[in-house]
Formats: sequence, C-alpha cells, structure tokens
Amino acid sequence: MTELVDATNQQSRDDVTEQVLAIARRAKIASRALATATRGTKDAVLEAIAQALVENSVRLIEANALDLERGRATNMKTGLLDRLALNEERIIAIADALREVASLQDPVGEVVRGSRLPNGLRLTQVRVPMGVVGMIYEARPNVTVDAAALSLKSGNAVILRGGSAAASSNAVIVEILRETLETQGLPADLVQTVDPFGRPGGVALMHARGLVDVLVPRGGADLIQTVVRESTVPVIETGVGNCHIYVHEDADVEMAVNIIVNSKTQRVGVCNAAETLLVHKDAAERILPAVYAALAAENVTFHVDPEAATFGADGPVFVEATDHDWATEYGSYDLAVRVVDSLDQAIDHIRTWTSGHTEAIVTASYEASERFIAELDSAAIMVNASTRFTDGGQFGLGAEIGISTQKLHARGPMGLPELTTTKWIVRGEGQIRG
Amino acid sequence: MTELVDATNQQSRDDVTEQVLAIARRAKIASRALATATRGTKDAVLEAIAQALVENSVRLIEANALDLERGRATNMKTGLLDRLALNEERIIAIADALREVASLQDPVGEVVRGSRLPNGLRLTQVRVPMGVVGMIYEARPNVTVDAAALSLKSGNAVILRGGSAAASSNAVIVEILRETLETQGLPADLVQTVDPFGRPGGVALMHARGLVDVLVPRGGADLIQTVVRESTVPVIETGVGNCHIYVHEDADVEMAVNIIVNSKTQRVGVCNAAETLLVHKDAAERILPAVYAALAAENVTFHVDPEAATFGADGPVFVEATDHDWATEYGSYDLAVRVVDSLDQAIDHIRTWTSGHTEAIVTASYEASERFIAELDSAAIMVNASTRFTDGGQFGLGAEIGISTQKLHARGPMGLPELTTTKWIVRGEGQIRG
Repeated sequence: MTELVDATNQQSRDDVTEQVLAIARRAKIASRALATATRGTKDAVLEAIAQALVENSVRLIEANALDLERGRATNMKTGLLDRLALNEERIIAIADALREVASLQDPVGEVVRGSRLPNGLRLTQVRVPMGVVGMIYEARPNVTVDAAALSLKSGNAVILRGGSAAASSNAVIVEILRETLETQGLPADLVQTVDPFGRPGGVALMHARGLVDVLVPRGGADLIQTVVRESTVPVIETGVGNCHIYVHEDADVEMAVNIIVNSKTQRVGVCNAAETLLVHKDAAERILPAVYAALAAENVTFHVDPEAATFGADGPVFVEATDHDWATEYGSYDLAVRVVDSLDQAIDHIRTWTSGHTEAIVTASYEASERFIAELDSAAIMVNASTRFTDGGQFGLGAEIGISTQKLHARGPMGLPELTTTKWIVRGEGQIRG
Repeated sequence: MTELVDATNQQSRDDVTEQVLAIARRAKIASRALATATRGTKDAVLEAIAQALVENSVRLIEANALDLERGRATNMKTGLLDRLALNEERIIAIADALREVASLQDPVGEVVRGSRLPNGLRLTQVRVPMGVVGMIYEARPNVTVDAAALSLKSGNAVILRGGSAAASSNAVIVEILRETLETQGLPADLVQTVDPFGRPGGVALMHARGLVDVLVPRGGADLIQTVVRESTVPVIETGVGNCHIYVHEDADVEMAVNIIVNSKTQRVGVCNAAETLLVHKDAAERILPAVYAALAAENVTFHVDPEAATFGADGPVFVEATDHDWATEYGSYDLAVRVVDSLDQAIDHIRTWTSGHTEAIVTASYEASERFIAELDSAAIMVNASTRFTDGGQFGLGAEIGISTQKLHARGPMGLPELTTTKWIVRGEGQIRG
C-alpha cells in the first residue's frame, strides 16, 4: 500500500514539475515581448494595473474575505490576519505604490561602460532584463502586486509563488494583472503563478534552471534558507539581519542613546533593526544606565553578559545572555548587550556572529570609525547613524526588491537595476582577430 | 562487507569534509589581512612570486617531469601532454603574466556610486574583496599561478582544486606561492589547495557555503556543469560557447568570408570560436561556395542542412546535420551550416540552440543589425566583426578570469572587478530615522 501511495505521489510530483516547466517556457517566450518594450509602454501597463485593481476592489475584497475566514478558522494570529487583510484604503495604497514604480527611471538600456577599441570596434555594455524572475514570498497580498510591478518595470516576466494563506486574494490579483496585460496588448504570460500546485509547485520553480533566470525569496529566515538550499536556479538571498551597534569609549551619550533607541525600536520586526549592543568598557558606566532607562520605557528585555548586568539599577528586565542570543535576529523588543574591552574585541564579536547586514559604530574617533569601516565585512556600515537607514527608499534607490546579504550580483538594498543583467554590443566594419 | 566499506568511505568523506572546512576557515581569517592591503603590497607580492618561480625553475621542472611521466604511462594525448609541460621558457612566460596582473588597476576601493542624502548622511558604495575564492580547473599548471594571482590582486584568499594530471607541478607551485607570501609578511593561508584530498576535496569545497564566497570553475563543459549542479557555494558559470554567425541577404561576400574564416579557424578550441553558420537564402548562392572553398582549404568538415548542401561543388566534406549539430560546441575543425528563410528564422534558430555566449551578424542593413542586437539574449553580440573578439584582453579589461555565460553578477568577459563585491558606507552625525 505504501509503495502504491509513493508511486502516486511521484507521479503527481512529475506532473507538477512538467506543468511548472511549461509555465516557465511560456514566461521565457512572453519575456521577449517586454525586453524591447519602451518605458512608455511599461509605465502605461503599471498605470492600467493600478486602475484595474481599484475598479475591481469589490471582487478583490470578496476573495480576501475567504482568506481571512480560513485564517480565523485556523487560529491565525491577529498580527498576521491584519497583514493579510485588504480594504478599499489598502487597495488605493497598492495602486499608489504601482504609480511610484512607474515614476522610477527605466534601468533597461542604460550604457554601463563603453569604449572604442584600438582596431576601431565600438564596444558598449548595456543593461538588459534578466528574462524570467521567480518570486517566492509569504502572506501579504500587496507583495504579489509589488513583485509583479518591479519585474515588469525592469522588463522581466515573473512567476509568483505566494503564501497559501493569501491564496484566494493572490489568485484574483493574478487574474486582474493578466487581464490588464492583454488589454494593453502584451502577453498575459508575463505574469503567472504556481500557487495552484502548492508546495511542490514552489519546489519545481526552484529547479527550473535555464528557464527561470533568478529567484528572489522574500520573507522570513526559514523561507529564505529553504530556497537557498533547495534551488538550482541562481538565488538572490535577502533579508536576514542580525545587526550590531558598537559604542566606542569616546561616544557622546545622547547620540548613542538616540541611535540605539531608534535602531532597536523604531520598527522591531524589520531586518535593519539592531539586535545586539556592544559597549566599550570605558563607556559602559556613562552609556548603559541611560540606554536601559530609555529602552525600558519601551518595554525592551535585555539579554546581558555579566558585566553589562552590573550597570542596571532596578527597572530593566534582564535575562542572562548565551551564545544563542549573540546569534539571534529577535525581530522583537529584545536586545542582547555585551561590554567589550576594546574596538578589536567588538570587531571580533561582530565577525563571529553577524549575518552581514548592517553594523553601526558610535564614536568621536576618526581612527575607530575608519577601522570599523575597513575591517568589518557587512553589506552596510553606519558611522554615527541608525542601522534603520539600510533601505532602498532611504538610500534614494526608489522601490526596493529586498536587502541582499550575499556578495554575488547585489549587496545591500536592491533597486530595479538589480533585476537586470548586461549585454556587450560590438559594432564594426568587418574586423577580424589577428 | 559492502556495508563495512561504505561505512569506511563515509568516515573518510566526513574526514575530508572536516579538513576542507578547516582550510576554508583559515582562508577566511587570512583573507582579512589582504582585504585592507594596499595595491603596493599586493603588487610587491606578485613581483616576488614571479621571481621565486623563475629562481625555483629546476625544482618546478623536476616536479613537472613526474606529471609528464604519469601522463605518458596512462597514454595521455600529445596535445594534453604539451599543455601540461613546463620548461624554462614557459616559466618565464608565467612570471611575465604575473607582472601583467601587477600592472592592472586595483579594483578594491573604487567608489561605485555615492550621494549626500536629504538628512545630510554621506553615502558611498565601495568595491571590496569577495573574501575567499574557490577555483576548480583542469590540467594546465600555469592556471594555478594565474588563478592565485587574480585572487590576490583582487584582495581575496584562494582555495585551489587543480586537475590531478598536474598534481606534482601544482603541489610545488603552491609551496612556492606560500613561501613567498610568508617572506612578504602575509599569511601563507591566502593560497591553499585541496588537491591532496582528490575528488572528495573538490566536492567538499563546493559545499563550503558561508566560508567560500564564490566558486569559479575553469575548464570543459563537463567540469563546469558538475560544479553548477553540485555546488551550494555561489558559482560563476564560465565558458561554454555555441557561437553563431548569421549572414544577412545583403552581406558583402569578402567581409562575410573573412569573418567566418576568422571566427571558425583562428583558434578552434576556444569558447568564442564559431560553431554554426546561418545564411539567408538570398545570400546563399553568393556566399556559401566562397565559404566552402576558404574553409575546405583549412580542412573544415561541414555539417549541413539539405539546402546548404546544394551549394557545394566537389571539394568540401559534407555530413548531414542533425539537431545534435545545432546543439554542439565542436571545439574542432567542424562547422554546422544552415540556410534560413529570413532574419526571423535566424533569430529563432539561435534562441533555440545558443549557449548564450556570442552571436555575430554580417549585414549592410541598419534595421537588421539593430533587431539582431535587441532580440537576441546572449552575453555578446557582434555586428560585422569576428566572434573571436569576446575576450577580456580584446575588450581592454586586462587579465581575464573567464567568460561568464550566466546573468547573475558577471556576464561576458570578466576582469578583476568581477572577483569583488561592494559595501555601503554611511557617515553621519547621529542621524536617526523619523
């Protein structure tokens, strides 16, 4: 009996793989129509999608109600239910976001470099679309629109794999996107979803090497690690942020406290929030009591090493820190705190535990700031500024696809150009190689 | 008995994995010493290595003799034996190549972009080393020096996995490299090899994700595909070139013949050599007899479709072309030839069969050239020029690590900057996010 079930499962997995590959082949063919489309055409599509979503609000909200109902029936947490919910206002916000993407410069066609070679050949390296982008993400339906908009603006076809919790909403969104593409004279297959195939559909997408050009996972650490491990399609790894703040011996108390409070609590669930505070031993007495007071007011729990614990009067909630704390991206009102003997020890600590996202130093010392910049190997280094600035919008890059913590292709906040590649073009009059 | 052997093998694989991970950890630590080294330091190391190799010629040639002896004993082909062989002259050429890498600009420290943000923060994106580069390559011992030189110049530690045929030569080269690093005051572990662990060492290297930052396979299609399939470390895929030349209806005969002969025969074993010729039906009568005559003089075998066969008088060697021919990178004196009805059919053919390396068009038509450029999705497009120009040296990029046929991170000829990543640096006065 077991063998029979296994055979059936295998058969069904093979079917899914075949259907997902067919989707990817259709995406590749559709992508050619968009690769040479002008910015005007692409922006018109985004505007038409914005209008269509608003016009179809009722249809969308009805589908979303089914997701919410399923969520409540399975005891989904209030926070998640809220992120899942759509209403008129949120649909208008999604439409506005589409118009913002339309307002961004088209990355396609940018001449990256070029020269005239000694033999007279004219060489240019030009930005072109990737082709087919795969996006694997979690529950929020607005990400469906967002991912499609960024892919289309950068000239790519997109294949979506959304969270099953938002399945009904996403299905209707994809319908609306495809209808709009057709009314705009473009192939509907520029936007496709593998959601009907469930988890095996996502796995098949990760193995569609040669048809899908890049896969971008957006979501929690588990999702991202699964994609990185499983995928044979090249992946852009995003988002895990175990960010550090180091307060040097000479730091200004007010500046340090402001940066720490902002980095930790301005928004706790995001990847650029601070998770560990390292304080130089000669600054601990000046800085730590003020930090504890300010953050205790925000109900932060402190995971402290023995020395950091000595600077807490009554008030702060202390838990003894273990290696687990140094390694953790809390994403909550928790902060690991350690007193270090020197800048060197701070650098060692960060090298050992960082996820390579963002590190900040607070210091008055030129030498300390330059060493911190040079010796740490993370995507972003802040000197006397909040870790929260590592963000595509804040950096002036426009819409953000994610924050890459890998070194290949993209590092730190990614804008539209990171969804493109380049092509070398050589123009001549019959030149041959001697 | 079988179980016992399996257990022993597993034990031995686990040991190799542990030892390769230890090598990778040492490489990561050593890489920090080089990440902040100046160009002066790095160029001095390359010069010292050049001198050391020449001074140790006898030792090197003795080791190489062992490889050659083993090669002859196992009936290695003459061509391969020749590529494997070292002598005084070749060692001087290797030293010269090192000095050429030293003469190249240092990619590290280049400011890629930057701006002052509205809140006064100064943002710069700066080029930094990857960290640890893995190189997996085949038999030529000069590649060992070359791979190490490119890695060191770009500020990276390198872990080498060379072909077993060159094991004795490579072992001595790595010894000399490590000795020289130490005399220059740098960690010897900037250059390490996993060759003593054989094939399992290479596999362990492919799985050292998080310690090895990028893996660059250099060699034949089988090697590259194995690395791409097996590796969890990000890979830069290089080199498979099924390159096409399309001759449009209006092409000049002399220009077409020159470009075809140069692209096919100037050097046949390389990835930018042409493998398939597509000729517009209205040009076939003018072009093909001249092409057959010119290439028959070079003993080229033609793999032809039925129509292309009709233009051959006696002389050329014809074989009937199958799909296998359209798909093949011959790397030999063979050329697939097809007559097409139109530019559209040529584009369709190339889209179906190309490996995405280089395609050339020969035409007098502006429209045809622009469509060929826009509608094909390969790393390099040549208009009225030989496919052989897709090369780092020819493009003026200096030393070439390889030619990437992937879309992520690097595409086409790769120079030193492709062995680096970037880091965002933000300098402020206590700015926090509102």
